[in-house]
Amino acid sequence: MKIIRLLRLQELIYNTKERRLAAAIKMIVGRKPLNLALYKLAIKHASAAEEIGNGIKISNERLEYLGDAVLGTIIAEHLFLKFPYRDEGFLTETRSRIVNRESLNQIGLKIGLEKIVESELSQKGLYLHKSIYGDTFEALVGAVYLDRGYYFTKHFILTRILTHFDLDNIIKTTINFKSKIIEWAQKYNHQIEFSLSTVNGNKRFKEFVVNLTIDGVDAVEGKGATKKKAEQEAAKAACEKLNIPL
Amino acid sequence: MKIIRLLRLQELIYNTKERRLAAAIKMIVGRKPLNLALYKLAIKHASAAEEIGNGIKISNERLEYLGDAVLGTIIAEHLFLKFPYRDEGFLTETRSRIVNRESLNQIGLKIGLEKIVESELSQKGLYLHKSIYGDTFEALVGAVYLDRGYYFTKHFILTRILTHFDLDNIIKTTINFKSKIIEWAQKYNHQIEFSLSTVNGNKRFKEFVVNLTIDGVDAVEGKGATKKKAEQEAAKAACEKLNIPL
Repeated sequence: MKIIRLLRLQELIYNTKERRLAAAIKMIVGRKPLNLALYKLAIKHASAAEEIGNGIKISNERLEYLGDAVLGTIIAEHLFLKFPYRDEGFLTETRSRIVNRESLNQIGLKIGLEKIVESELSQKGLYLHKSIYGDTFEALVGAVYLDRGYYFTKHFILTRILTHFDLDNIIKTTINFKSKIIEWAQKYNHQIEFSLSTVNGNKRFKEFVVNLTIDGVDAVEGKGATKKKAEQEAAKAACEKLNIPL
Repeated sequence: MKIIRLLRLQELIYNTKERRLAAAIKMIVGRKPLNLALYKLAIKHASAAEEIGNGIKISNERLEYLGDAVLGTIIAEHLFLKFPYRDEGFLTETRSRIVNRESLNQIGLKIGLEKIVESELSQKGLYLHKSIYGDTFEALVGAVYLDRGYYFTKHFILTRILTHFDLDNIIKTTINFKSKIIEWAQKYNHQIEFSLSTVNGNKRFKEFVVNLTIDGVDAVEGKGATKKKAEQEAAKAACEKLNIPL
């Protein structure tokens, strides 16, 4: 099947719209589609879903579910290798800053998805959902994965997508809850104090418990494998409790 | 580097403990480790972490973060291909029933991780965390991925791990929120009623809004692309609001 596709015989019977889509995919992904049907599905937003009977609707939502997982794994490995001395909390936080809905929408726009998605939707005069580009980008990743496999998709993401991110800036703004709560205290004239209350465990395995008092009253406690982590946890809990904007 | 590893010269300098670990990995994964260091790290639970100075601790938590993503993608694709007519909500729910902490713990025990993890921990007399086998299983998946690549890992999961799951049973028990709330109402003698309040959109794209009243009082509403989905959403919100055990 793959060999037949590699011969590109199917390109001989593309209509104009299909030829345009194949060319657009080549611009975005770097290679021509082997199975164009996957990409046609990827640009079909739920709002333009086709009903095929039995209440079953055909849209890109299934591909989006797959692409979301594939993208998450590729970014996870990239950060894992790039930051050998950072813990999993940092890696998880940084990844979620890369793959959040808003940043994926921007990526979708940057790589020009609005040109191929709008042509699907605008001709039907439908309402454009605001997260449509992020959704479509994830579905596109799912389509590339099924069409070309994992390693091609990884190469596509690392060389053509991650370059749009300012990773240094993303990391710099990873939230420091302790400084947030200190800022808040200064602004509203409160006294806060972090104090180490207990250390559990033995020589090799320790758990630190930090108490945070606000104006002399016990507010929250935080636990962690280091004093710094326990303080961050306590500060985070306090920020949530006090609804401090982050 | 990979070629040197394939020559297995490193096996000549394994000590007894390393030889045992390599044999255990071969039993579990199906192939001998190319880079044993990855597997040594995978079985090092956070509670047995080694400090290497600067407050940096070496444990399997980073590998667990990576393995979690890889496992999620492999299961996502498997379900995507196995159920071509089920929507992404079903796929997401089914996946989360496979990769939840409890079922991963059981998998860890079934494939015998307690034999290699306990030998790391018990000799130090440390407390065994209850989620240790699930955590270690995820870390092992991360190690296999780095050692042998994506497709080998996929083959390992599909042929040696998924066979432990009774997928039919998992699907049968996928929660039906509507029947849960109906059950609850019958048990505690409440009157509940689902009613379609609005349908937004045009001929091709519809959004249904369903109102759920409890004893004649508006309780929650649910939205969805079909009436059935909107009812499920409303029922789910009600279950959460009323703390109905699922």
